[in-house]
Amino acid sequence: MSENNDINSIDPNNISQQELHGYLLSAVAPRPICFASTVDKDGNVNLSPFSYFNLFSVNPPIMIFSPSRRGRDNTTKHTLENVLEVKETVINIVNYDMVEQMSLSSTEYEEGVNEFVKAGFTQVPSDKVKPPRVGEAPVAFECVVDRVIALGDGPGAGNLVLAKVVQIHVKKSYLDADGNLDTPKLDLVARMGGNWYCRANGDALFEIPKPIRTKGIGVDMLSESVRNSSVLTGNNLGRLGNLEQLPTKESISRIAEHHEVKTILEGTMNSLVIHKLAQKWLEEGKTEDALALLHL
Amino acid sequence: MSENNDINSIDPNNISQQELHGYLLSAVAPRPICFASTVDKDGNVNLSPFSYFNLFSVNPPIMIFSPSRRGRDNTTKHTLENVLEVKETVINIVNYDMVEQMSLSSTEYEEGVNEFVKAGFTQVPSDKVKPPRVGEAPVAFECVVDRVIALGDGPGAGNLVLAKVVQIHVKKSYLDADGNLDTPKLDLVARMGGNWYCRANGDALFEIPKPIRTKGIGVDMLSESVRNSSVLTGNNLGRLGNLEQLPTKESISRIAEHHEVKTILEGTMNSLVIHKLAQKWLEEGKTEDALALLHL
Repeated sequence: MSENNDINSIDPNNISQQELHGYLLSAVAPRPICFASTVDKDGNVNLSPFSYFNLFSVNPPIMIFSPSRRGRDNTTKHTLENVLEVKETVINIVNYDMVEQMSLSSTEYEEGVNEFVKAGFTQVPSDKVKPPRVGEAPVAFECVVDRVIALGDGPGAGNLVLAKVVQIHVKKSYLDADGNLDTPKLDLVARMGGNWYCRANGDALFEIPKPIRTKGIGVDMLSESVRNSSVLTGNNLGRLGNLEQLPTKESISRIAEHHEVKTILEGTMNSLVIHKLAQKWLEEGKTEDALALLHL
Repeated sequence: MSENNDINSIDPNNISQQELHGYLLSAVAPRPICFASTVDKDGNVNLSPFSYFNLFSVNPPIMIFSPSRRGRDNTTKHTLENVLEVKETVINIVNYDMVEQMSLSSTEYEEGVNEFVKAGFTQVPSDKVKPPRVGEAPVAFECVVDRVIALGDGPGAGNLVLAKVVQIHVKKSYLDADGNLDTPKLDLVARMGGNWYCRANGDALFEIPKPIRTKGIGVDMLSESVRNSSVLTGNNLGRLGNLEQLPTKESISRIAEHHEVKTILEGTMNSLVIHKLAQKWLEEGKTEDALALLHL
């Protein structure tokens, strides 16, 4: 481990697998939860949560989750054995109202124990695949398993299960007026490091408009005093850099006439005071005015 | 689309790719953010965020992200072209303080434009790979690209970039007293559907102890009146089912002597009142007492 004042730089080969696991799980988060139901060749049902999971493609619609080999004894999980026997799964999405039952279902019960029963979930027959879906889930994806890719054969090795969506179930109560899934209503949960979970609702949710159709001027186009401001944060600079043009002479003149600005200009000119006012305007969503103010 | 009272069941082939995209992105969330820096064969640097991303294996330590083909014109992204030319990347982790600059960097600037400069991030040389890391990131993973797997060749097709971690950089200010990454301090952000983000801090964070060493009795072992309670929630049942044994006669007798319980028992016996008291105790963390109360 090399060190400088404020950074630990670590070669993963020089720490224990447990330490490595801790860094990886805490840093790569929040992780969405795949609550996967599967069946073995005799039709025995298994239900288990995985947080090595995400969407990876829309066309074809492919999600991937990884039932890893256990770190302590290198054994494999029932879910992996099942998808190798019957190449189907239902990926159920988990929200806050289900989280403690979901956690209970991750208990390592014996083979053949149905976690739907142990965790008290409703087993609903699927339309196109053999594994049932979770009746309580706000959204469920019936999937066929496209392929399984082993990333290694030692303890802690991942096994990528590439699952192609063939049917989608959405509870109407989670749709907005336009028929789209409503993020605040969904109240989804995600896994973090340690025993931590994250709940995506209330103040945890915030919006940033996507800069896909726009092309911001960039932080590099702001003046040096603005870029090196002791007041303006990185988020403030990011928002200013997202504007599509520098302020016109007209908008700068207009801002110079603003009553708060006039008061500042009549006193001892102080960039700190100007920056603080610009920051207040940024927080109020007056981004163009803030940029003009910084160009006085 | 088939419907029953409260569920929309949808065949993904029967809706537009845009509608499908909307369902998938809103349901599979919160998604962690891979802020990937790459270089082309001439050393030009690119920095771009991806939310089709997660950890998938600890041994070997492998993360996967997907720079998809664009839905509107089927073109590929500079990041994909770069990792095919120079098989290395740095996966920088994003927290709240960086989120607006990160969003700005997702602007589609021309090839050769360095998003470190446009977004105002500090370019720090890596130890083992050519792409630089983001100085502002709380954690950064230097990776070699193990392989790239195309999931299709049409618009919206994913491209799995399997990245093996070869060096880890952790800012000391995000470590706790034991040297572990501190989840509340990290203040990570994740992508949701639409323009939504989720911030993993404050009240959004909660803990559930992992049931790995324990084997809960299961919700199926609770009495029918408890399982069908109009008061107790699924989370209440999940927590009760996580206890390792049913209450003993002694603990039930002790609970019967509890002053609040005695008051209830002296009045008209009402399971609703008992369930409400059990719920209150569950919220206070007195799980065993709540289970004994429900067995009076």
